[in-house]
Amino acid sequence: MESIKVFAPATVANVGCGYDILGFALEGYGDELILTERQDDQLVIKTIQGVAELPLDPTKNVSTVTISALLEDLKLNKGFDLKIKKNIAAGSGLGSSASSAAAAAYAVNEFLGGPISSEELIKFAMEGERIASTKAHADNVAPSILGGFTVVRSYDPLDVFNIPYPEDLRVVIIFPQVEVKTSDAKKIIKEQVKLSDAIKQWGNVAGLVSGLILHDFERIGKSLQDVVIEPVRSYLIPLYQEMKTIALNVGALGFSISGSGPSMFCFVRDTSESSLIIERAKELYGKNGIDVISFVSGINNMGAKTLD
Amino acid sequence: MESIKVFAPATVANVGCGYDILGFALEGYGDELILTERQDDQLVIKTIQGVAELPLDPTKNVSTVTISALLEDLKLNKGFDLKIKKNIAAGSGLGSSASSAAAAAYAVNEFLGGPISSEELIKFAMEGERIASTKAHADNVAPSILGGFTVVRSYDPLDVFNIPYPEDLRVVIIFPQVEVKTSDAKKIIKEQVKLSDAIKQWGNVAGLVSGLILHDFERIGKSLQDVVIEPVRSYLIPLYQEMKTIALNVGALGFSISGSGPSMFCFVRDTSESSLIIERAKELYGKNGIDVISFVSGINNMGAKTLD
Repeated sequence: MESIKVFAPATVANVGCGYDILGFALEGYGDELILTERQDDQLVIKTIQGVAELPLDPTKNVSTVTISALLEDLKLNKGFDLKIKKNIAAGSGLGSSASSAAAAAYAVNEFLGGPISSEELIKFAMEGERIASTKAHADNVAPSILGGFTVVRSYDPLDVFNIPYPEDLRVVIIFPQVEVKTSDAKKIIKEQVKLSDAIKQWGNVAGLVSGLILHDFERIGKSLQDVVIEPVRSYLIPLYQEMKTIALNVGALGFSISGSGPSMFCFVRDTSESSLIIERAKELYGKNGIDVISFVSGINNMGAKTLD
Repeated sequence: MESIKVFAPATVANVGCGYDILGFALEGYGDELILTERQDDQLVIKTIQGVAELPLDPTKNVSTVTISALLEDLKLNKGFDLKIKKNIAAGSGLGSSASSAAAAAYAVNEFLGGPISSEELIKFAMEGERIASTKAHADNVAPSILGGFTVVRSYDPLDVFNIPYPEDLRVVIIFPQVEVKTSDAKKIIKEQVKLSDAIKQWGNVAGLVSGLILHDFERIGKSLQDVVIEPVRSYLIPLYQEMKTIALNVGALGFSISGSGPSMFCFVRDTSESSLIIERAKELYGKNGIDVISFVSGINNMGAKTLD
């Protein structure tokens, strides 16, 4: 039986001011999927290893829903066995379902010899995302497939592209071990926003995007602000303001919620800063009796890839 | 008596998706100001030539209010005679008051040997703008002083910067001879915006800013959309939708309102397109009995400057 093993990275969506449009991929942290061809046209999840409890029903699992959408579009009657290795916890804010969807879309496309472009793959992975969060959003699947820093300029028609960023930009992830359901985090967002706040937000988007492309670290730090989502969502994350203050005092270039949380992230330039932030995060959450996973990462410029 | 003569360009603010934050300067079209030192500490407007009827009272004129703010900040008792030559009509949407404010701020600073940075000058010119439109906005004065394409990332604290753009980008201005008062155009803007529209807007800001910096003309064109302001404001501009359709059909890279209108603008690459758009604009407005001024311009990278 022919088989393929792929990796799709964890991702940070929203990125402060860029709610629903910005995202980037992390290095060395993500999910794996082994896809093996079957003789029939069934999709069968053989094993799910790792941190997340996920449905085995192929009509409810993000990976199989993604594959179904893709095969249906190509009008192919094919079946696969899936072995999934989840490293990203569901409800972490690090694009767990997007990574499953991205890995599935990427794997089946590679298996078929790549009939679909990376940009088109995003559409199918979005169908998987829809199962996990009722809305087919693209801000996590785009960077998980494409790698790097991505912009979802438009959903209708879908227009997604990469933007350049400074290679020496580092990200610190702080993931307190509490669950925030994406659906809960979505519920508290208001449907209306004050125009004056929206203007601040798109001013910061202009600052962040230009800062990234022009490698202006000071501007990146100043622009990593969110006056629309953070004020309501940060209440779902224990010790958010305390952690933010600590990180900014240490010299982080901005600090915000990763996706819908509870993970938080900040940009840094130096490993000395990242070490200090990780240390302080452990102190802060430790003395409050909350476990925390914290690590430093570069921005992954590869996206989904085939493993040997 | 010592004297200085300066020029400050007309400007396009908002630029589609960038309401209140984006702007750029036009080439060869703008206002002139001659500033001559007086023996006393009075500001006296000697002459105003040109298209706009403006107040001679120094507490009500944009130029003199700007100069007063600047002199007060520097704690200087100085007086000047002003000779103003307005080429930009008030209520045109091309930054008429901003040009007066920018010229005044730039002239007095040059006269004094340049004690204030260009970025700081924006603050004083904003005080002049406040007289004209009740709000001290910066999206016209910034490009009129600095030139090029500007972003007002934040008003508090003021953070303004230039972004690169393709040198061969051309702008067509279409200015039907009807007046839209900025104060009227402000009044019809709703204070609340749908989050889904705000997301579209900041997606397009990310697209436009990255398209400009990376010289991606297709992306510039796609991103020059405004789902927040244009839908309400375009009703104040006669034949807006018709003119937009014509320009886009000819090949314009996007089409939007300049400032608060009634001027409109579009980006083009070729002079053949710009000639055709100008011709069609004259036809359209002509057969509807409305005079129209229409011209093509590059983006002015100098901003305010001293004339011989």
